[in-house]
Amino acid sequence: MLIVQKYGGTSVGNIERIKAVAERIVRTVKEGNKVVVVVSAMAGETDKLISLAHQASSNPSEREMDLLLSSGERVTTALLAMAVEELGHKAIALTGWQAGIITDAVHTKAKIEKITGERVTKALNEGYVVVIAGFQGITEGEGEITTLGRGGSDLSAVAIASAVNADLCEIYTDVDGVYTTNPNIVPEARKLDKISYEEMFELASLGAEVLQTRSVEFAMKYEVPVVVRSSFNNNPGTLVTKEDKDMEKVVVTGVAYDKNQAKLTVVSVPDKPGIAAKLFKKIADANIVVDMIVQNVSSDGQATDISFTVPKTDSKKALELTEEIAKELGAKGVNLRDDIAKISIIGVGMRTHSGVAAQMFETLANHKINIMAISTSEIKVSCLIGAKYTELAVRVLHDSFKLSEG
Amino acid sequence: MLIVQKYGGTSVGNIERIKAVAERIVRTVKEGNKVVVVVSAMAGETDKLISLAHQASSNPSEREMDLLLSSGERVTTALLAMAVEELGHKAIALTGWQAGIITDAVHTKAKIEKITGERVTKALNEGYVVVIAGFQGITEGEGEITTLGRGGSDLSAVAIASAVNADLCEIYTDVDGVYTTNPNIVPEARKLDKISYEEMFELASLGAEVLQTRSVEFAMKYEVPVVVRSSFNNNPGTLVTKEDKDMEKVVVTGVAYDKNQAKLTVVSVPDKPGIAAKLFKKIADANIVVDMIVQNVSSDGQATDISFTVPKTDSKKALELTEEIAKELGAKGVNLRDDIAKISIIGVGMRTHSGVAAQMFETLANHKINIMAISTSEIKVSCLIGAKYTELAVRVLHDSFKLSEG
Repeated sequence: MLIVQKYGGTSVGNIERIKAVAERIVRTVKEGNKVVVVVSAMAGETDKLISLAHQASSNPSEREMDLLLSSGERVTTALLAMAVEELGHKAIALTGWQAGIITDAVHTKAKIEKITGERVTKALNEGYVVVIAGFQGITEGEGEITTLGRGGSDLSAVAIASAVNADLCEIYTDVDGVYTTNPNIVPEARKLDKISYEEMFELASLGAEVLQTRSVEFAMKYEVPVVVRSSFNNNPGTLVTKEDKDMEKVVVTGVAYDKNQAKLTVVSVPDKPGIAAKLFKKIADANIVVDMIVQNVSSDGQATDISFTVPKTDSKKALELTEEIAKELGAKGVNLRDDIAKISIIGVGMRTHSGVAAQMFETLANHKINIMAISTSEIKVSCLIGAKYTELAVRVLHDSFKLSEG
Repeated sequence: MLIVQKYGGTSVGNIERIKAVAERIVRTVKEGNKVVVVVSAMAGETDKLISLAHQASSNPSEREMDLLLSSGERVTTALLAMAVEELGHKAIALTGWQAGIITDAVHTKAKIEKITGERVTKALNEGYVVVIAGFQGITEGEGEITTLGRGGSDLSAVAIASAVNADLCEIYTDVDGVYTTNPNIVPEARKLDKISYEEMFELASLGAEVLQTRSVEFAMKYEVPVVVRSSFNNNPGTLVTKEDKDMEKVVVTGVAYDKNQAKLTVVSVPDKPGIAAKLFKKIADANIVVDMIVQNVSSDGQATDISFTVPKTDSKKALELTEEIAKELGAKGVNLRDDIAKISIIGVGMRTHSGVAAQMFETLANHKINIMAISTSEIKVSCLIGAKYTELAVRVLHDSFKLSEG
């Protein structure tokens, strides 16, 4: 088999870990596989570099930030290639651009445009373990160094797996796989053997940090089989794959939560067509992602309230913009609440089972948890609640949908 | 003027130092100059990376070593460009290959083949301060990352200065300039205002660590005016330039010493033609640089002793090779001594003044310092002495040639 293995920051956090990873790689090779490895920076390195940048400048240029941050992964690739060679197996370290990872020019959150992986394939055919720096790429024209954003090494791994037509993409991390919910909150949370791309995508989007959202999207699009597993043991992990009949039998696969949202409410806006469009255009122009939107129907047909959520980090900026608009529109004012959480249940089985949303609302109501807003998709239901109820809500939903039973 | 400024590791050793360097750069720009900056890794970073490599592997591959070590300078370029921008001036950071530094493929000690500096010139014309990662380059075909060896950033700076036709190349370091000898040994050592390329080259080769030898060679070849000065104050430094009439008036310009040599002696070799050739071919094939060679004429015409010096780091390897050869040749044995030092006096004035060597030998003899070997060139005389006499020899020679008087 041709296997792409991705090792995250904690998996390569020090020399002992790097040596352990080298041993796993050589073992995989000895089992008859060809191996491409994608690595992150050693744990803590990226944060250290970001801190240095903010000491050097109050507003560091994104281009220079990319050049700075891309150095961390290079260090890991070189050290890991050395450690593999020390075990008697040929290895070669490649930077993002040496591996042919071409991106657009949007610094700090570049998108992969294509991978010209000839050098990777050539080295594999010559019997090398190929160790590639994750998280980074290069623009085609000017040859500018870019990075793919937080968690971007997952995306590098999946994209490379697709480019070299790998049989499997293993994402090694510090947890055993994908769980029905966060085991720190629900000790009975169960590791899933298998999960569909769609479910994984929703989980990742909804705050479960095990895989980067864009990497799941990419894997789904190009049908790259992904396994999430731990580099600290030999447990089999969770396979992320195409939806199958078995998966549909399970109504709810997991419970996710997200505490990183803030809620803005424009109070008593005159109820005229085009108001929402005007507001959200302005927010979108500022590159702020709006998640849930609730507009109350006005009882008298004169005025209405509009609520929406944005990432907490953007809430100050969003508040400013919304207050400007509110003034223009003649609204009474704008409220900001950041003591909220979004609780979600996910499962492809929802497509064929009814009553799931109702059961969720009822469960929350039974525990006196008030729902501020609701949003649904084909395979998920999300509710906005008070932040202080987060853990309680996760536990009672996990219990209600019998997720520990499998 | 177009000025290339190079800042060494201690000059950019932490964020405060980087900010101070940014201020100096902006000041230079405000004085009406265009500025290209070449930087080293932050002090200690390269050693840290080397240590990690040796933990990862007992014999790290040189290709991966280059990839690893080249990351340090990238960090500095990005941080320094940010710090310059913070002061309100446009700046752009470029890696070695982005600046077009093309080298041969000899990893860890690559030679610059050419510099295709279009991007540097373009950015300068657009009003940017261009900050370039020193010490590194790229091969033309495969695009392999290379490094230029210890002190290679000096070479990067001089080569870039030549490529962009700079009016001046300033090498910023933690000392005020080039001294008649090490001021730590001779407190009266005097800073030179001016020194010829040839003298600087000898000084650098003979152990003075202020400028990398190859960078001096390059500056001499392409007549790049170089100034060595401190980044910790505004003192004017030392100009390294073409020899002029003034310089010839001074007989001896400086005293240098080198404690990093070891001496090997092949005892009682049968005195036949071709013996030395055989020995030194073998040593050269192992990439060991032999410095001084002394062959005693044998009194009886039957056997002779051959002594030579090699860098201490290569002495073990050289001893093994020499012992093999000694056996083949029927010599009595091989001695290794590493308690030796090489003391040298340098000055272009020697070309037109006689008696300089004699004065050196006499001065040493007056202080009961035994000379083990002598080597001379047009502008220097070197003597091998016992290591314990190093400081004494430096002091008495500095005094004898009245170097503190200028």
